[in-house]
Amino acid sequence: MKEEAYIQGRTFIFSIANGEDLLPVLQNFVIENQIKFGIITATIGAVSKATIGIYDQKNKKYNKITIEKELEILSLQGNISLHDLKPMVHAHITLSDQNGQAFGGHLMSPTIVFACEVMISEFTGKQPKVRKTDKTTQLLLWPNPLQIKK
Amino acid sequence: MKEEAYIQGRTFIFSIANGEDLLPVLQNFVIENQIKFGIITATIGAVSKATIGIYDQKNKKYNKITIEKELEILSLQGNISLHDLKPMVHAHITLSDQNGQAFGGHLMSPTIVFACEVMISEFTGKQPKVRKTDKTTQLLLWPNPLQIKK
Amino acid sequence: MKEEAYIQGRTFIFSIANGEDLLPVLQNFVIENQIKFGIITATIGAVSKATIGIYDQKNKKYNKITIEKELEILSLQGNISLHDLKPMVHAHITLSDQNGQAFGGHLMSPTIVFACEVMISEFTGKQPKVRKTDKTTQLLLWPNPLQIKK
Repeated sequence: MKEEAYIQGRTFIFSIANGEDLLPVLQNFVIENQIKFGIITATIGAVSKATIGIYDQKNKKYNKITIEKELEILSLQGNISLHDLKPMVHAHITLSDQNGQAFGGHLMSPTIVFACEVMISEFTGKQPKVRKTDKTTQLLLWPNPLQIKK
Repeated sequence: MKEEAYIQGRTFIFSIANGEDLLPVLQNFVIENQIKFGIITATIGAVSKATIGIYDQKNKKYNKITIEKELEILSLQGNISLHDLKPMVHAHITLSDQNGQAFGGHLMSPTIVFACEVMISEFTGKQPKVRKTDKTTQLLLWPNPLQIKK
Repeated sequence: MKEEAYIQGRTFIFSIANGEDLLPVLQNFVIENQIKFGIITATIGAVSKATIGIYDQKNKKYNKITIEKELEILSLQGNISLHDLKPMVHAHITLSDQNGQAFGGHLMSPTIVFACEVMISEFTGKQPKVRKTDKTTQLLLWPNPLQIKK
């Protein structure tokens, strides 16, 4: 279970314009900048509407929830890796409503930016990980997950 | 939409004393250490009381919520950039109460630390971003946000 | 209050197998890879069951909450430092249920992975911080927390 380390590549810190749809903007950004592998963290802001997915682990499908409210982005965490030879963003978002109550799930479109500040770090030095459909979960996952149990 | 990357500078990992007010401590830290641009992530702990802001996107003002309870800090995410020539912390906090229920918003003062472990990374190699009042949102934002839509 | 900076060491980005218990896997990983000091961020996924701790600040003990539901991991934030000469993971998890509602606390075992993608960065260049029981909070904390108030 010894893992080889990655080397930190380029780091991008930028904001997204009011009215943009968050996931396609991020997706577009990683493709244009050819970020094949990396992470998303330290990302905050607000949205005027959000769409999140919650995976139904038994029925193997995402249930989509649309929240038609002004929401703060408390956190956006995730990564970039390859799927079908293209960089793919996988991110989970935590939001709060006007009472401060928190919600979240798998970031989906449309999630409309009111204001948003993003941090993306590229990692290199090893082959980028590649997503493929995993039999057990029916999710697009990376190969060779860490395992202790036999 | 090609972005120039930043270069990672100094990284600080430290804790904050019981009884301190979180935002002014962070603000003081970035000024004393002259961190003009960077990110905050991997920050957790607990507070004995919290103040969060939720931006009212229509009326363009923060509504302040005070939570007079013991709370865990699940996440503190954000960044440091310049405002009026001085480093300014912008961070969103996620908290949970005694039932595990989560809340959050824009970190405000007073938010009283019970225990807190912080990570701040500086980024250099380009000019630090500078906050100015944005007309559309009336928030202090960075110039040139990413835009796909015309 | 000038802090000395750390130097970024190895970064590991990997996934964890379905059915594993999240905290012991992370704990095992940092020991096997001899990561004595570092951070955890950009970690997302889903679990089939979670155990979180909420610290009772008055009675100085963790109350344990077990959530026997499918949950998304919205965020896992924290750090690695030494305790009793061994690397110790300290992390807080944010989760959401089938309605998107968010919960969280101190990551405990058992928290059973459905799918999980993790990022751990090592920091070197200074002695790793060491946890010892803090008198005021009765928590395992680092020495010399930042303090402004006298």
